[in-house]
Amino acid sequence: MRNLKLILSYDGSEFAGWQVQPDAVTVQGTLASAIGRITGEKVLPQGSGRTDAGVHALAQVVTFVTESSVPAANFVKALNDILPASVRVLEVEEAAADFHARRSARGKTYRYRIYRAAICTPFLARYVWHYPYPLNEPAMVRAAGLVEGEHDFTSFAAADPERSAGVPPPFASSENRHGREGAPASNVRRIFTSSWECQGDEFIYTVKGSGFLHHMVRNLVGTFILVGKATLRAEDLTRILEARDRSAAGATAPASGLYLVNVEY
Amino acid sequence: MRNLKLILSYDGSEFAGWQVQPDAVTVQGTLASAIGRITGEKVLPQGSGRTDAGVHALAQVVTFVTESSVPAANFVKALNDILPASVRVLEVEEAAADFHARRSARGKTYRYRIYRAAICTPFLARYVWHYPYPLNEPAMVRAAGLVEGEHDFTSFAAADPERSAGVPPPFASSENRHGREGAPASNVRRIFTSSWECQGDEFIYTVKGSGFLHHMVRNLVGTFILVGKATLRAEDLTRILEARDRSAAGATAPASGLYLVNVEY
Repeated sequence: MRNLKLILSYDGSEFAGWQVQPDAVTVQGTLASAIGRITGEKVLPQGSGRTDAGVHALAQVVTFVTESSVPAANFVKALNDILPASVRVLEVEEAAADFHARRSARGKTYRYRIYRAAICTPFLARYVWHYPYPLNEPAMVRAAGLVEGEHDFTSFAAADPERSAGVPPPFASSENRHGREGAPASNVRRIFTSSWECQGDEFIYTVKGSGFLHHMVRNLVGTFILVGKATLRAEDLTRILEARDRSAAGATAPASGLYLVNVEY
Repeated sequence: MRNLKLILSYDGSEFAGWQVQPDAVTVQGTLASAIGRITGEKVLPQGSGRTDAGVHALAQVVTFVTESSVPAANFVKALNDILPASVRVLEVEEAAADFHARRSARGKTYRYRIYRAAICTPFLARYVWHYPYPLNEPAMVRAAGLVEGEHDFTSFAAADPERSAGVPPPFASSENRHGREGAPASNVRRIFTSSWECQGDEFIYTVKGSGFLHHMVRNLVGTFILVGKATLRAEDLTRILEARDRSAAGATAPASGLYLVNVEY
């Protein structure tokens, strides 16, 4: 029995998210079927986390167990020959038996792209959030810095308690979805870096953390936008974190601008 | 009665080409319907030329006649509010009564993007031709230069005589599709510049000419690829032009790599 680790890039636009679902085209389901065609096995590849419909990945990490003797390197070409062009396997390698894409993850980086020009070129429409209105960018930079460190991110977590897109941080004793040994789920996460930068016509948010709750990055971006519009002050981020109440923060930013950039182990 | 000139950019991936067709989503049909919603008129906007299914435009030029009093500048926002994100109006301005997007055109520039890396990122799959195999690029550069000047491009024209994607060059007395006064259609066109350049992982062909026959740029690219693969020598381009026979040239390159870059008047 071999444990294989894949690095996967995908354009999330035409997928109903990562997680396999009946009657919907998902990245996990598409990959499972491609692996099945090569190995003849029925496998459910495990991602480092779920991405929602429309969310992209530059380097999602995936593990799956197989009896197949196909060399790891050959899986790259064989899978890419079967997969649609919107999903590409960048790398396949043997992993230790106890390596698991989600449970072994120590940190993740996400990026969110906002397109600022008045008219959004059609070639970027699926890949950014087009927001051509005025924004106080320096205030957004200050606000982003205030979420760095260890915080309870309940205010930025999707209201549906069944879903956590995140991995438990190393210091947490439970997972959101199935609290181990009945321990209550924790919404505490550590954000290592959180920053905005201008790049041409884009204003880009990059956040690196121990793990992320469902919708957390998009809810942070939706809240930073309120700071940019001066509906909130940058300093309000501290108050919103302390409120531990989803209704204290801004709306969920669109999926199209969000990218899972990489996963650290 | 006003004559309006639009500059239009579109991602051709999800359109059955420019030209309006029953039961198919086309750029011309989509634009006609958006204009109709604003002006209440039934208009058929005229493009500088047709683009095929999957072919993109950075700056297609379009004219249409209207009785509407909506200021030209307001059409930009009004149309972009109605059009899908895959089609953007970049500019609208008043044009002289005798200005016509196709008949007034004096030249056009097309670009063709070939992606050379082993794995094509999902974010470019719709926008390039992925060709990761070896190519003799200097030979392709030489071949491209040989089609500059005035030539009969019959060898590079689609076999269907009903379709010409090109505009008649200033020196031609007839159009391909409907020879004026019964004159035979001419496949003579003048190519001003024809060249390849490397840009990162891409090898990009740019061609500027008086007009282009149907499939001409894609057939040129398909033939340059044969030179790149050493199936042909660069010098064979001269012989192929002289043959005036479609079967002498290479296959039609995929639509996804082709862009109408601009139109000159």
